[in-house]
Amino acid sequence: MELGTPKIQNFLRLCSILLLILAACLVGFDSQTKSIVYLEKKVSYKVLQAFPTLVYVDAVAAAYNLLQLISRISFLSEYKGSFKSSYRYVYWCCYLVDQIAVYITFAASSAALEQSVLVLTGAEALYWMKWCNKFTRFCFQIGGALFCNYAACALMAFISSISAFNLFRLYSPKHFLVLKTT
Amino acid sequence: MELGTPKIQNFLRLCSILLLILAACLVGFDSQTKSIVYLEKKVSYKVLQAFPTLVYVDAVAAAYNLLQLISRISFLSEYKGSFKSSYRYVYWCCYLVDQIAVYITFAASSAALEQSVLVLTGAEALYWMKWCNKFTRFCFQIGGALFCNYAACALMAFISSISAFNLFRLYSPKHFLVLKTT
Repeated sequence: MELGTPKIQNFLRLCSILLLILAACLVGFDSQTKSIVYLEKKVSYKVLQAFPTLVYVDAVAAAYNLLQLISRISFLSEYKGSFKSSYRYVYWCCYLVDQIAVYITFAASSAALEQSVLVLTGAEALYWMKWCNKFTRFCFQIGGALFCNYAACALMAFISSISAFNLFRLYSPKHFLVLKTT
Repeated sequence: MELGTPKIQNFLRLCSILLLILAACLVGFDSQTKSIVYLEKKVSYKVLQAFPTLVYVDAVAAAYNLLQLISRISFLSEYKGSFKSSYRYVYWCCYLVDQIAVYITFAASSAALEQSVLVLTGAEALYWMKWCNKFTRFCFQIGGALFCNYAACALMAFISSISAFNLFRLYSPKHFLVLKTT
C-alpha cells in the first residue's frame, strides 16, 4: 500500500509554512512614520482589524501545517508498507481540518485584501480618505504579504485536494460510503 | 452504477441557488436616505466596492449552480444505469469548477463582511467615521445578506466535497491516479 502521495504533500506543506511565516512577518513588522501638516503620524498593522487577524490566522495555519508535517513523517516511518482500513479516520481528520484551515486562511486574506483596497482608493461616499499616496512603502509591504498569503492559500487548497483524494479513493465506486474490499 | 449521490447534491444546489439569489437581492435593493445636518444623504450598496462585487459574484454562482442542476437532471435521465470510465472527465470538471465557485463566493463574502465591520466600527487611526449608528436599517439588511451568503457558501463547500467523493472513489487505493478495474 502506497500511503497516498506523501512526498508531494510534505513538500507543499513545507512551502506553505514558509510562505505563511513570511506573510505574517511582512504584515507584523510593517510600520511607517511620516509628518503630515506639523503632525508625526505613525501607521502600523494595527490600524485596521483585518491585519492583526491575518497575522494570527497565518501563525495558526503555519503551526497546524508544521504539526501535520511532523506527525506525517513519524506516522509514515512507523506504518510504512502496511494498510489498515482504520486509517480512514486519520484521513477523514486530515481532510476536514485541511479544509477548515484553507477556508479560514482564504477568508482572512480576502478580508485583508479588501481593506487594503479601501486604504488605496478611499470611499468618497462615506468621506473616508485614501492613505496609500502618503504611506506608500507601508502599502507595498502589505501587498507583498497578501501575495505570499494567496500563494500559500493555493498550495493549501491543493494539499486539501490531495487529502480528499487519499480519503475518497478508499471508498467503493458502486455503493455510497462503503469501503472497498482490497 | 449508482451515479454518485445525485438527489442530495441536487437538493443542496437548489437551496444554495435560493440563498444566493436572496442574498443578491438583499444587497442590491438595499438603500436608505436620511437627513444629516441639513443635508439629505442617501446610501446604497454602491458606496463600497465589495457590495456590487458580491451581487455579481452571487448572480454568477447562482447561474452556475442552476446550469449544473439542469445538466445534471438531463444527464441522469440519459445515462441512467450505465457506467463508463470516460465519465471521469465530467467528474473532474464538476469538481474543479465547484471548487473555484465556492472559493470565489467565499472570498467575496469575506471581503463584504470585512467592509461591513469597518462601516460598523470605523477606523479611528485613519479618521474613518462609523456609519451604522446613522443608517441602521441599511446595515441590518446587509447583515442578513451576509448570513445568507455564508449559508450558501457552506452548502457549496459540502457540494464540492460530494463532487470530490464522486470523482476520487473511481481511483485505485493502491496506485496513484490509476482507475479502479470494475
